[in-house]
Amino acid sequence: MLERYLPILQWLKVYNRSTLTSDLIAAMIVTIMLIPQSLAYALLAGLPAEVGLYASILPLVAYAVFGTSRTLAVGPVAVVSLMTAAAVGNLALQGTAEYLTAAIALAFLSGVILIVMGLLRLGILANFLSHPVISGFITASGLIIAASQLKHILGVDASGHNLLDILLSIGARLDQVNLPTLAIGVSATAFLFWVRKQLKPLLIRLGLKARLADIVAKAGPVLAVVATTLVTWGLNLGEQGVRVVGNVPGGLPGLHLPSFDIDLWQQLLVSALLISIVGFVESVSVAQTLAAKRRQRISPDQELIGLGSSNIASAVSGGFPVTGGFSRSVVNFDAGAATPAAGAFTAVGIAIATLVLTPLIFFLPQATLAATIIVAVLSLVDLGALKRTWAYSRSDFTAMLATILLTLAEGVEMGIIAGVGLSVLLYLYRTSKPHSAIVGRVPGTEHFRNVDRFEVETSPRLLTLRIDESLYFANARYLEDRVYDLIAERPQIEHLVLMCPAVNLIDASALESLEAINHRLKDSGVHFHLSEVKGPVMDRLKRTHFLEELNGKVFLSQYDAWEALGGGRQPEHSTLAPPL
Amino acid sequence: MLERYLPILQWLKVYNRSTLTSDLIAAMIVTIMLIPQSLAYALLAGLPAEVGLYASILPLVAYAVFGTSRTLAVGPVAVVSLMTAAAVGNLALQGTAEYLTAAIALAFLSGVILIVMGLLRLGILANFLSHPVISGFITASGLIIAASQLKHILGVDASGHNLLDILLSIGARLDQVNLPTLAIGVSATAFLFWVRKQLKPLLIRLGLKARLADIVAKAGPVLAVVATTLVTWGLNLGEQGVRVVGNVPGGLPGLHLPSFDIDLWQQLLVSALLISIVGFVESVSVAQTLAAKRRQRISPDQELIGLGSSNIASAVSGGFPVTGGFSRSVVNFDAGAATPAAGAFTAVGIAIATLVLTPLIFFLPQATLAATIIVAVLSLVDLGALKRTWAYSRSDFTAMLATILLTLAEGVEMGIIAGVGLSVLLYLYRTSKPHSAIVGRVPGTEHFRNVDRFEVETSPRLLTLRIDESLYFANARYLEDRVYDLIAERPQIEHLVLMCPAVNLIDASALESLEAINHRLKDSGVHFHLSEVKGPVMDRLKRTHFLEELNGKVFLSQYDAWEALGGGRQPEHSTLAPPL
Repeated sequence: MLERYLPILQWLKVYNRSTLTSDLIAAMIVTIMLIPQSLAYALLAGLPAEVGLYASILPLVAYAVFGTSRTLAVGPVAVVSLMTAAAVGNLALQGTAEYLTAAIALAFLSGVILIVMGLLRLGILANFLSHPVISGFITASGLIIAASQLKHILGVDASGHNLLDILLSIGARLDQVNLPTLAIGVSATAFLFWVRKQLKPLLIRLGLKARLADIVAKAGPVLAVVATTLVTWGLNLGEQGVRVVGNVPGGLPGLHLPSFDIDLWQQLLVSALLISIVGFVESVSVAQTLAAKRRQRISPDQELIGLGSSNIASAVSGGFPVTGGFSRSVVNFDAGAATPAAGAFTAVGIAIATLVLTPLIFFLPQATLAATIIVAVLSLVDLGALKRTWAYSRSDFTAMLATILLTLAEGVEMGIIAGVGLSVLLYLYRTSKPHSAIVGRVPGTEHFRNVDRFEVETSPRLLTLRIDESLYFANARYLEDRVYDLIAERPQIEHLVLMCPAVNLIDASALESLEAINHRLKDSGVHFHLSEVKGPVMDRLKRTHFLEELNGKVFLSQYDAWEALGGGRQPEHSTLAPPL
Repeated sequence: MLERYLPILQWLKVYNRSTLTSDLIAAMIVTIMLIPQSLAYALLAGLPAEVGLYASILPLVAYAVFGTSRTLAVGPVAVVSLMTAAAVGNLALQGTAEYLTAAIALAFLSGVILIVMGLLRLGILANFLSHPVISGFITASGLIIAASQLKHILGVDASGHNLLDILLSIGARLDQVNLPTLAIGVSATAFLFWVRKQLKPLLIRLGLKARLADIVAKAGPVLAVVATTLVTWGLNLGEQGVRVVGNVPGGLPGLHLPSFDIDLWQQLLVSALLISIVGFVESVSVAQTLAAKRRQRISPDQELIGLGSSNIASAVSGGFPVTGGFSRSVVNFDAGAATPAAGAFTAVGIAIATLVLTPLIFFLPQATLAATIIVAVLSLVDLGALKRTWAYSRSDFTAMLATILLTLAEGVEMGIIAGVGLSVLLYLYRTSKPHSAIVGRVPGTEHFRNVDRFEVETSPRLLTLRIDESLYFANARYLEDRVYDLIAERPQIEHLVLMCPAVNLIDASALESLEAINHRLKDSGVHFHLSEVKGPVMDRLKRTHFLEELNGKVFLSQYDAWEALGGGRQPEHSTLAPPL
């Protein structure tokens, strides 16, 4: 029980020198990668750079205690930072104390929501985000994030939470472009793209092992940070309008309880819920993928608690919402992290960096951070998924396209809500006109097949309708219409059998419809039977008066119904009967 | 084509003297019943009494032209009037010109929405209101309406859109009760309850035919109206504080286009949508019930157009939202209405009443109208449904109870939205952990059954999982977990067969999960097969790369899979083989 809620107890007792070494090496590599990322995502969320570092210390320790993935690396990530900016941007101006207070409250609220969901075992809620919706949402978020960072590359002021606003806002200020900033921004972006696409093959050709080459290539942003900081300092570009990170308070964050302002919490509640669910889905997918590679298991419900405690840890140490990130977790995994202790060691690394490095990043240009964000998020953009989804399912494509367009046009919150709503509606719509078939007997067998597709025996007095879907509120009325139409077309029918092998559920609305059908068929002198009703469905029907009132019988198999109702002209009483 | 959109063309050509007589008689009876109802529901909607009469003239004519039910009686109804009061009450004060303008715009907008839904054939949307939600909503609305009318019975001012507000507001003013009003209100209510429960049996004992007795009993409200009006006039009770209907403008309503105020429309949009759907569901249920009794058919999509044109007709003639009402339609049906012409004749009757009767209802006490509303709506309250639903399904019960409580506590709009949302969520939740079973072969047959329930043959190297639900986003991840757990527990497995006879759909999210399962099983050296995949599902899979990449086969029947994968120790090649 204790081990369930404190997974650290499971791995700590088998901890040894070998895992320690692996974890320390992984932690060093991830620390180097995480420093520019943390600064950059704080910038993306509209927060001071140091807040990104704060969000990469305690949350990692909390996850090491409560999380179930051995290799997940927690911290600020692109999509959640964008959602934070959208949520907090509605309530306060960037750069104000209220803005920071709201971001911290958002992390706290999101942490509470995640933990409550975990205790209630609601990890399953994440399933309601369909794959096309998540994929579309991440693609659109990537485009918005990349667009929002253009202003830093160009050195202009701009704002907006949707693609059009951002681009128009930047377009209106193109005359104010700062050329030294542009030079730094463009060369950093070009360098990082080159690192991502071509450095790894080059290193391999130079003799490095593939995995090492990969890790070195992932350190590209650090190289860009060091180089552009030195250039900006050497050429004194700050005086020529290149915006730099500037004074970052040294020292570790103090611990404070977040603001308990109920009004603020109410305003942030929906955003916190969305951030929690999106962050959880993103994190759990990464964790599951990595766990699968090593045949490990994660527990989604405990992951909720792990991520929740990370967010609360972030909030009490002055950070903003965090979750498990894809690229850093892959680096952690590839670098050989063996246990969550690697995360705790990374936290120590970031803490040291916060103490030591902050004076050194005074001259770090914001354009460099923007370049690292752009290169990172453009890899999330997958427009090809639209084409693949179109080929498979129009309905999934519609949900994906709507999510992309609404996220781009109306912002992240509207996009994700509309995407979820639409995929649910489309699913209900799909099942609201279920597939059904009139079936007949395959001659000489006990099998019954669709009369439109097979040569089968039918009877003029007996009609069998097979319904291929659970019966519930969205299709109950359709079933009634279908039956009434069939009966109206065939006045000679005496028995109607509803064949239910694919009916996994009959809800209260569908029960009402079955009662209405029974009543109406009785008035028309037609007997109403059921066949092949599944066990759990039958158990439930037995709790009602429906079976007593049924003007017909329930048959275990369709063949029994066929035999009993005189379907065949020469009824066969048993397939086991000896041949004549 | 023309007949589809103008159902009047179908019945007008077979119209004759006999149908004319039937329709005229029904129209007279419905007119008498509709006059007090129309006045009362206008009062409930917070509108002047004459607006109720206006809403009972042109809308009936429009429905006679465009509607498909032979016997549906359209006009103001209780639940829609309450929803109108809630929607318009947010925007303007009762008694102001803005309030009336908004109510008229609401009718117009609702008419447009209904017609658009009809042209797009979205009648199916009404299915998303599950039966427990509708039933709970109507019960709660009935309670709110009854409570809201108490103030008229007591003669005090009170307001509020939820049960608690209304009762508290009335409770705070109990010292201001007007005794003459209370006397009229209580005696009218008692009389109407007596009429409803005991007049019909009494009349039958006195020798009247059952149907006639029923119709006379339905005229009870008219008797109450006449008696209390005379008493109020004779005793001059108006001067003692009994509120009367007062001056009602004589003459027919003028025709005006409604306000084309986009701001107003935006504010009313959601309310109009809810009113449209609730009104449509209520109306179409009544229409279908009555049509079924005479073996007639209605067309739900054309009904949308019929009700939409009624609402537009209401709006242009100064009325408020209308729909098909239950009790008046039953009276119309019982009185022998043969065609929608009965509705048109009723409209003429109401028009004459509007011209002639308005001076006579000056002294009609509002308490009498409140009494007719209370008696009418309390028959809608069905708390027993809670018990019946609890017995059948906890999940449907939850949706019903939540709808009732939220409607009572937060008002009609919140109640219906939450009810719909919750029933969808509960359905998704139910299907998110689908029933599945490991199956084995029933010895000597081609049948496969759950190993936990039957004595069946299994093989140590072959595992078959039957999944009893469509695979879609809500359960895709669950399927992955289930498969991974099974494989982790059984290291000796070489073949996993997913048996899909109840899988009616595999959406893009589930396809991703199947791909992930295939990939992962391949890594573990396990072959992944499918069996009994339905035709439409297979067609869709063929459009992807899944089948090419599948590390196994798709078998038409589970028996084929069993045979091919060496399930039986002594494989039988055919059940048709002669006995040894």
